[in-house]
Amino acid sequence: MDRGSGVTSGLLVTLEGLDGVGKTTQIERLKSWLQDKVEVLAVREPGGTALGEALRNVILHRVEAGSALAEFLVFAAARAELMHQIVLPALTRGAVVLMDRFIDSSVAYQAFGRDLSVEAVMTVNRIATQGRTPDLTVWLRGQPYETGSPDRLEQRDLAYFARVEAGYEWLVRQDPERWLVVDCRQPADVVFDTLVRAVARRMTS
Amino acid sequence: MDRGSGVTSGLLVTLEGLDGVGKTTQIERLKSWLQDKVEVLAVREPGGTALGEALRNVILHRVEAGSALAEFLVFAAARAELMHQIVLPALTRGAVVLMDRFIDSSVAYQAFGRDLSVEAVMTVNRIATQGRTPDLTVWLRGQPYETGSPDRLEQRDLAYFARVEAGYEWLVRQDPERWLVVDCRQPADVVFDTLVRAVARRMTS
Repeated sequence: MDRGSGVTSGLLVTLEGLDGVGKTTQIERLKSWLQDKVEVLAVREPGGTALGEALRNVILHRVEAGSALAEFLVFAAARAELMHQIVLPALTRGAVVLMDRFIDSSVAYQAFGRDLSVEAVMTVNRIATQGRTPDLTVWLRGQPYETGSPDRLEQRDLAYFARVEAGYEWLVRQDPERWLVVDCRQPADVVFDTLVRAVARRMTS
Repeated sequence: MDRGSGVTSGLLVTLEGLDGVGKTTQIERLKSWLQDKVEVLAVREPGGTALGEALRNVILHRVEAGSALAEFLVFAAARAELMHQIVLPALTRGAVVLMDRFIDSSVAYQAFGRDLSVEAVMTVNRIATQGRTPDLTVWLRGQPYETGSPDRLEQRDLAYFARVEAGYEWLVRQDPERWLVVDCRQPADVVFDTLVRAVARRMTS
């Protein structure tokens, strides 16, 4: 367990994909499977730090919306704090950290999905995480978001989700070793078995 | 008035230096001198935007302090919003924008003064400002911070302020054309005359 930046010895596993593909369920099952073997943390941004919660409140309760760039930087600040206070110390202790979305969601949703620069998002991510990348990222793909009657709003949503998926595809091409792409339309038990095998392999390597 | 990124046509003037060197006084005088000639705005971070004020409250009123990196990213978010909402539109209208501290304070105080990476701070600054750099930056230097009895706390402060000043010196060397270095120990009228000449020259060029 000495992949990624090489600075920390634990295992950082992130789950990515559209809402509804089963990330939360799989993380809960992975956590249960891991917790009698090793220290394990399940983390979801921006939660867990005082700063992260305060920043989430700022974004949620403000009347006037900030620019996309400013909001991304707010979440990057929460991410930096979560890494500094919780994730990096846990990895240093040798823990397995399971994250429900992480740096790749910013690239897929904010850069590809909306209009932020891919390079800017990746650069700020690298700074906020102190360069620690996941050891394994699972993309649960195949959510049939194309269903439903094609009214005006839904057509816009379809284009948006298509851009997000294109973002994930692009990310996999950048670093295929890090990624495990799993069809989320399989039974949850089949998905879970695939994930367990991938995590176990990285724990023993 | 087409310097900096070339995208905006106004004039962005920033004042830098330690507290107490007279930045606020000089900005008020410059604003008075300019305001019957051109649209002029005096801006101080993070103020002026709803997001900026909310973020300032988060930093000021939290019990638990965030990491230096996270706090810098919070202020970068406020900076991005201020640029997006106020500064860049004003520059596009051809206004003169006077700022009491800006990107160079982050480098001098957070990177040189504390322990953040100079490259990380400059990179995030560039993203938050959409690449718009000041057309003129005045460093009011020469504040005799070395005075006072050298007890333990003050010695630490002296080292800190010396690092901040070294940061400003480094910044001037990176881009000497942008900087005007003025001895703040001169009479305020002499400092003001120097600033007026520099601003006027950039307005007509």
